[in-house]
Amino acid sequence: MSTQPKTIGVLTSGGDSPGMNACIRAITRTAVFRDLCVVGYRFGYVGLIAGDSVALNARSVSNIIQRGGTILGSSRCKEFETVEGREKAADVLRRSKVDALLVIGGEGSLNGAREFAVQWDGQIIGIPGTIDNNLGGTDWTIGFFTALETALDSIDKIRDTAEAFDRIFLVEVMGRLAGDIALGVGIAGGAEEILIPEAPDDIETVARRVLEAKRRGKLSYIIVVAEGFCKGGAMEVARRLSEITSLSCTSCVLGHTQRGGSPVAPDRILGTHLGIHAVEAAIDGATGVMVGEVNGAVTLTRFEDLAGRRRVLDPAYWQKLNVILRS
Amino acid sequence: MSTQPKTIGVLTSGGDSPGMNACIRAITRTAVFRDLCVVGYRFGYVGLIAGDSVALNARSVSNIIQRGGTILGSSRCKEFETVEGREKAADVLRRSKVDALLVIGGEGSLNGAREFAVQWDGQIIGIPGTIDNNLGGTDWTIGFFTALETALDSIDKIRDTAEAFDRIFLVEVMGRLAGDIALGVGIAGGAEEILIPEAPDDIETVARRVLEAKRRGKLSYIIVVAEGFCKGGAMEVARRLSEITSLSCTSCVLGHTQRGGSPVAPDRILGTHLGIHAVEAAIDGATGVMVGEVNGAVTLTRFEDLAGRRRVLDPAYWQKLNVILRS
Amino acid sequence: MSTQPKTIGVLTSGGDSPGMNACIRAITRTAVFRDLCVVGYRFGYVGLIAGDSVALNARSVSNIIQRGGTILGSSRCKEFETVEGREKAADVLRRSKVDALLVIGGEGSLNGAREFAVQWDGQIIGIPGTIDNNLGGTDWTIGFFTALETALDSIDKIRDTAEAFDRIFLVEVMGRLAGDIALGVGIAGGAEEILIPEAPDDIETVARRVLEAKRRGKLSYIIVVAEGFCKGGAMEVARRLSEITSLSCTSCVLGHTQRGGSPVAPDRILGTHLGIHAVEAAIDGATGVMVGEVNGAVTLTRFEDLAGRRRVLDPAYWQKLNVILRS
Amino acid sequence: MSTQPKTIGVLTSGGDSPGMNACIRAITRTAVFRDLCVVGYRFGYVGLIAGDSVALNARSVSNIIQRGGTILGSSRCKEFETVEGREKAADVLRRSKVDALLVIGGEGSLNGAREFAVQWDGQIIGIPGTIDNNLGGTDWTIGFFTALETALDSIDKIRDTAEAFDRIFLVEVMGRLAGDIALGVGIAGGAEEILIPEAPDDIETVARRVLEAKRRGKLSYIIVVAEGFCKGGAMEVARRLSEITSLSCTSCVLGHTQRGGSPVAPDRILGTHLGIHAVEAAIDGATGVMVGEVNGAVTLTRFEDLAGRRRVLDPAYWQKLNVILRS
Repeated sequence: MSTQPKTIGVLTSGGDSPGMNACIRAITRTAVFRDLCVVGYRFGYVGLIAGDSVALNARSVSNIIQRGGTILGSSRCKEFETVEGREKAADVLRRSKVDALLVIGGEGSLNGAREFAVQWDGQIIGIPGTIDNNLGGTDWTIGFFTALETALDSIDKIRDTAEAFDRIFLVEVMGRLAGDIALGVGIAGGAEEILIPEAPDDIETVARRVLEAKRRGKLSYIIVVAEGFCKGGAMEVARRLSEITSLSCTSCVLGHTQRGGSPVAPDRILGTHLGIHAVEAAIDGATGVMVGEVNGAVTLTRFEDLAGRRRVLDPAYWQKLNVILRS
Repeated sequence: MSTQPKTIGVLTSGGDSPGMNACIRAITRTAVFRDLCVVGYRFGYVGLIAGDSVALNARSVSNIIQRGGTILGSSRCKEFETVEGREKAADVLRRSKVDALLVIGGEGSLNGAREFAVQWDGQIIGIPGTIDNNLGGTDWTIGFFTALETALDSIDKIRDTAEAFDRIFLVEVMGRLAGDIALGVGIAGGAEEILIPEAPDDIETVARRVLEAKRRGKLSYIIVVAEGFCKGGAMEVARRLSEITSLSCTSCVLGHTQRGGSPVAPDRILGTHLGIHAVEAAIDGATGVMVGEVNGAVTLTRFEDLAGRRRVLDPAYWQKLNVILRS
Repeated sequence: MSTQPKTIGVLTSGGDSPGMNACIRAITRTAVFRDLCVVGYRFGYVGLIAGDSVALNARSVSNIIQRGGTILGSSRCKEFETVEGREKAADVLRRSKVDALLVIGGEGSLNGAREFAVQWDGQIIGIPGTIDNNLGGTDWTIGFFTALETALDSIDKIRDTAEAFDRIFLVEVMGRLAGDIALGVGIAGGAEEILIPEAPDDIETVARRVLEAKRRGKLSYIIVVAEGFCKGGAMEVARRLSEITSLSCTSCVLGHTQRGGSPVAPDRILGTHLGIHAVEAAIDGATGVMVGEVNGAVTLTRFEDLAGRRRVLDPAYWQKLNVILRS
Repeated sequence: MSTQPKTIGVLTSGGDSPGMNACIRAITRTAVFRDLCVVGYRFGYVGLIAGDSVALNARSVSNIIQRGGTILGSSRCKEFETVEGREKAADVLRRSKVDALLVIGGEGSLNGAREFAVQWDGQIIGIPGTIDNNLGGTDWTIGFFTALETALDSIDKIRDTAEAFDRIFLVEVMGRLAGDIALGVGIAGGAEEILIPEAPDDIETVARRVLEAKRRGKLSYIIVVAEGFCKGGAMEVARRLSEITSLSCTSCVLGHTQRGGSPVAPDRILGTHLGIHAVEAAIDGATGVMVGEVNGAVTLTRFEDLAGRRRVLDPAYWQKLNVILRS
């Protein structure tokens, strides 16, 4: 463990997120400067198992920082969830003499990394890359800020027309378990309602507030719905609201647009910082940890301490927000 | 009729579209310079019937050219479809001594203007404002270019992630009868398929092409669907494609985001040009006409000649395009 | 002092920054909900001295969160730097029975607030609003993230063409004393050099690195220059680099575009959070403090503790960054 | 001449412009479908002379339509201005058995193509690719619309802050001989003045209008300056205006940002259309012509008829515009 790694492997896994390329670039350039070799595996664990790899150097990561997606490709991998699959992966890494594996991904991918640590004797370091911002051990995940901006752009556009028209607008954003995107974009977009899994609400109550706002003379009513708020998401909320209020409802489902786009500055900077530190952590012998940013400083958290660290919504904060939203 | 108008009324009607403000600004400033008074009616024909108006001057249209929507508000108006409704509107205009009414809107709004011409003795001039670009008498309608850019932005974002993943992406854009937005954004976005009302296609055939492309090694398959292509739009196409191909399908429904946003340059310039010429046409005594831009020149087309001028899709052009899309 | 304020005054001062409107909105809505009256002064201290005010309510701050600039206007005010000017301002506030004044602005504006605290017996609370991100007592200032994104957009565009051409590109960003924008945009934009006041560098050395990079086969070389790096800014650096290297240099001066634009999500959210807490701090009797965000939590810092808190650049961090930039 | 070409060469030359990639893609895919081989030369005539080429197929132009710049690279080439240089180029083409050469570029590049036609016996077809929109034989050049949008974005941002502040803003856009970008962006951006080479104006007169506008209570004054309006461009105009009016002036020089960026829809569509037709024209035996779009239809214009076709500014139109700008 105290021998310095000579070859670093890197892969991006799960739903891709903007800023992953900045991270790959920082990993590669820092590693090369520290005289390490860098191997990229394509399409996440799928490529790792298959040994589908590409050598990375300073030049191969040139001109990628501004690109959405990931130059390595990403995927979800059923096979890696099996002991056999992970064993194949360990074989590939042993044959390629990879000493440390850096995994950029979200919850599922880091869980995979954690399980893999048991079967493979090299170092494993996780880096939080997901638009959902739903991980413990870090204040921000790579890609969250870009997803926020994409969703915000849609709300701004809808408000332009909402001001001119008379109906309820619903915008569905990503977030099956975590309402971070919905919360951020609802505040920033000046939405009237934010419906998130963390704060269950009753459609009848929402409908009552809509009608009351209409009576008070509001010209528009925009509702941000996290996909995990209820089964059926925005479409279902629209159907029910329309039923109760007899108002016309229009839905916009942003879907995978939120995963794409040129990353905004904070995601590129975060990706760069975490990439630098992941390589340094590897050189320092770290393993079984995720690199994160907490309170502006880079930290390492053990995989086993990540679980259950889901952020909770502070009720006092939620109440203050709603004052502003619904005024 | 040969006396020059002294007061001009203006309203925006139907679905609002980006660039309407540039048009209102140009109308107002040109009219004021020509010593005319300008009255804006709020929320389209609804405000006209109700006499809900606002005086416009050079200052009141300052700093609006970059704003989405319309400062006058817009709406659809059932009452204006009746003789009684239009009679009320005529009364309002007579009482306010409005000599010429400028209506910025799409097909329905201009049909309304045409009917109104029979009941009111003032001048009526239409200006094509709709994102659909589905009118005769003009090559472009105000708002089309912005809608195109908004939809394009979504496709670009989806492609970033599509390149990293393995599924079919569907993007639903506006267009109940006309596929102009779908066509434009499909070409510009490099989509693999464009499904439009003008070119009925069979989902089975589409599915076959998808599977064939997958076999050829394509990493992504993006399908642009005009909402009017089939009942249920993109969601329905996704359901059926998924059934036939067993591939995962992800839909993005852009909805009203396409109506909003700061207008792009061509929509602002078009709105400005048409606004200037509408006022000049009014001064010249024109009535019962729509101002449009054909081959780069401003033209007047009589309302009765607009109908049935829907553009048709040239099959030879369509074939050439498909070569490029599906290669 | 322990009586709860009944009327709150608010103004934006100095160079305006995107997100100020989100802050004004949050202040107003929170205050109204807490049964306070809100008075806005126009054009900063100029309007305060002149008593140029406007009453603010929930409706008057509707639909402003997405707008750049500030609805109250802003300005620099020489008169407020004098005892007499500040005395006039105190009179205005006394006459209007304003109990607490909230000042949104940068270093100069908060210094003004600090001096004003001596002459006026009401509560004064500062809120950090400047694109420069150069204040103590807060990790971020309202507007910084938007300025970063604007500058980043320019670098991305230049790189597109830089890849195709052969010359040195210089981009001048704001920052007379602080290189925060330059640093952020240089990292995020993948620039080859970042020239900032905090890290004096020698043009000859820069030129040597440029020529060496050219020898190594780099296709482009982008240099971000903070305006305060040297007298003359980017234009002067370009002149000297061109002289030494005989390479063609092209400069882009972003200027005031960095102050404008619809605010990005982090600036809107920060503005909202700080606005809420500024009102609550006022209700709690705070005075002579600035509301800031440190490590994700809202904090209060006394005006006298703000001075000299300028952030310094960590040399180890700077060195790691340069590895990535110049590889 | 009546034998169909078997191999097509393509290059991008001069200042690159957004949309060139869409054109390369359409050329390649149409050609491949018609059973032609496609060879791309890198960095324009420089690569042609050096024989620096790359084979293009449907896959190699995949996922490039949204990218700024040109995947082939571009440059200006002194050597091609000599008979010897062009002779080398002709040799390269003969050796590679290229039957038709497609040149995407602006005025200088097409002049080069025209001269080359004398020395080489293959077919030569030009395609208008330049942000300047200053060519005869086409209503639009590939890249113009994107440059317009980039410049417009800057003006919109400046206006946000201009509304809050009190000074004269100058924005310098590209255009040495043609004011098309300045004109378009000035109209769309709602600038107060547009200074272009085609309409010489006196700084004293401009200064007088500024002061008069200030007296009338205007809050901002934005002046768009085409770089070719006068020696020194916006910086010089600012210096003189400041001298005469004693008002503070702030300049923004957009520079090469105008050449970059992901192309907007009209540039991608134009590039696609012209690319398709250039290949078809080649197949039909055309040579010595430029493919353009006039009144919405694709046309061919002989190189010798392009010269002197510079558009002139209609004084009546200019006058009407100025009414709107200065109101």
